[in-house]
Amino acid sequence: MIAQTDLRPEDTLMHKEAGDASKIVANQLAQNATLLKGLGRELRLLKPAAVVTCARGSSDHAATFAKYVIETKAGLLVSSAAPSVSSVYAARQMLEGTLFIGISQSGASPDLVRTAEAAKAAGAFIVALVNVEESPLAKMADVVVPLRAGPEKSVAATKTYIATLSAVLQLVAHWTEDSELLGALEALPELLAAAWYCDWSAAASALLEARNFFVVGRGLGFGVAQEAALKFKETSGLHAEAYSAAEVKHGPMAIVNEGFPVLVFSQKDETRAGIQELVTDFAGRRAQVLTAGDKLTGGTELPVVAGAHPMLEPLLFIQSFYRMANQLSVARGYHPDQPPHLNKVTETV
Amino acid sequence: MIAQTDLRPEDTLMHKEAGDASKIVANQLAQNATLLKGLGRELRLLKPAAVVTCARGSSDHAATFAKYVIETKAGLLVSSAAPSVSSVYAARQMLEGTLFIGISQSGASPDLVRTAEAAKAAGAFIVALVNVEESPLAKMADVVVPLRAGPEKSVAATKTYIATLSAVLQLVAHWTEDSELLGALEALPELLAAAWYCDWSAAASALLEARNFFVVGRGLGFGVAQEAALKFKETSGLHAEAYSAAEVKHGPMAIVNEGFPVLVFSQKDETRAGIQELVTDFAGRRAQVLTAGDKLTGGTELPVVAGAHPMLEPLLFIQSFYRMANQLSVARGYHPDQPPHLNKVTETV
Repeated sequence: MIAQTDLRPEDTLMHKEAGDASKIVANQLAQNATLLKGLGRELRLLKPAAVVTCARGSSDHAATFAKYVIETKAGLLVSSAAPSVSSVYAARQMLEGTLFIGISQSGASPDLVRTAEAAKAAGAFIVALVNVEESPLAKMADVVVPLRAGPEKSVAATKTYIATLSAVLQLVAHWTEDSELLGALEALPELLAAAWYCDWSAAASALLEARNFFVVGRGLGFGVAQEAALKFKETSGLHAEAYSAAEVKHGPMAIVNEGFPVLVFSQKDETRAGIQELVTDFAGRRAQVLTAGDKLTGGTELPVVAGAHPMLEPLLFIQSFYRMANQLSVARGYHPDQPPHLNKVTETV
Repeated sequence: MIAQTDLRPEDTLMHKEAGDASKIVANQLAQNATLLKGLGRELRLLKPAAVVTCARGSSDHAATFAKYVIETKAGLLVSSAAPSVSSVYAARQMLEGTLFIGISQSGASPDLVRTAEAAKAAGAFIVALVNVEESPLAKMADVVVPLRAGPEKSVAATKTYIATLSAVLQLVAHWTEDSELLGALEALPELLAAAWYCDWSAAASALLEARNFFVVGRGLGFGVAQEAALKFKETSGLHAEAYSAAEVKHGPMAIVNEGFPVLVFSQKDETRAGIQELVTDFAGRRAQVLTAGDKLTGGTELPVVAGAHPMLEPLLFIQSFYRMANQLSVARGYHPDQPPHLNKVTETV
């Protein structure tokens, strides 16, 4: 652990960048509206048979969110590409009529670009969600959806993650002509601003000395559980692992004993009953349960913005979370902008 | 931790059942040959456009292995079904012309059965890999592939996991008419028997006091890394997490410091160079690296059966691993047959 006694949480890049999400999303939704309306029309004509996502790290957790949004809204199968299949094993896949969505802040990961190129050669239609518009991935894509998050200097992605989720929602809302979701998105910037001021200090206190940790979500909330777990590793040296509320019962439950800390995200949709049952179960074995979800009972309730559209709620949870994760990082003696051993652009082959 | 001072590792059901894998696989390969040759012919006629797998826990780690085998050998897209999409969100998916592979020891998980039923209604062809042939999943499937592992009494799956991987290999070998792989499979029982006697005590000693742990694999070796991580949680209360060798560089690396234990699986295929680089990187930061992979250098080398077909190697690694995991569990004061908080059949909705 590195002593950073003079560092205040509000002085970090992570704090500043995460705090910008509301403004960024407001601008992004306005700037991308025409583009995504057009792409939606194109996808309705194209009628893709299936969707492949390809991403790494935080972007891959955005891809998890995209999987649930697309599978439930558009009724298509969504597969997460294993980049090694084309980039390492050089296997050819039949992807005629498939929509390939590449997600990357930098648009520069060599394995992602290679996988996208192989998918294009195999007949897929390539959509790139990138923050850096002058990038190899953007250059080879059929359609580029700019994240418009501005330069991200912090190694730990925050604003680009939220910007990716909002771009996914706007894309799918136009594609499926979901006027309810399009209407709900109009309130997103304001809701994000409110979420930024939800005080999750109770979680930072509870996790000050933690070494092991589970973050749980289900369905639309699973992607942000993955993102939260990774952020804890990167910025607080805390071994946090994400589980879907269904999967955690198959084995991992064995290590959830008295005092074991668990953070549970729960948007208000069809997954709620199962999540509530799990929280009651965790509480019964006296685990240290922290909950983020309006009216989810049985643990330490973290304040959330109530009444939002369930598909927007995960974005609000992670927005409140980022502020707390930055706070926790500093309190644990880390510098969230300087995680050990990491580079901003990871070059995997 | 529960004191089990009089328990010897060779007295557990886990030890007995894992040790039976070689015999079970020999019988399974012989008994299923005609069935799988026929199913292979049927799949070549059917020409599925994509594959969906659906499973939980250890079976889902077998599905990860199946994804790599099918994507590299059959060139089809493989997607892991999110059971909540149909069973909780009640969303309809277009699955006409899709091969749905359900994997379950018991064939009785309600969410899996419901997801398979929804897939069937949406036009998918259902293949069930099950150990219990008189089960709801087997009953509704178009084709049942029996695992033939005999009753599994230990809560921690071992023999059924290996039996699932061998069934996947035999199925895909027939489907793609891969005579090289079919030939290689003939040696599998003998190789498993040899793997059972590879002594991994060095790993058990290294992990005696561990609290946190990463298990790493890539491509065809990733599924067994997932399985090993789960087994450590279930049977040794050890917070082990699986990572693909590519993904571990995107963030998780932040917690791999001096002395942090890592187990790396590496079959001898195209992924080897990248894995070797990662082991060198881990060693450079003085992590405690254990390696399972013929001629993989830089860590503490665990003995492996050399010279096997790379697609068989993951099965051999996990066979050696199970013996050690059982040993470690007892040494840490646990009873591997009685993991806390778990039931054999997990009823998730």
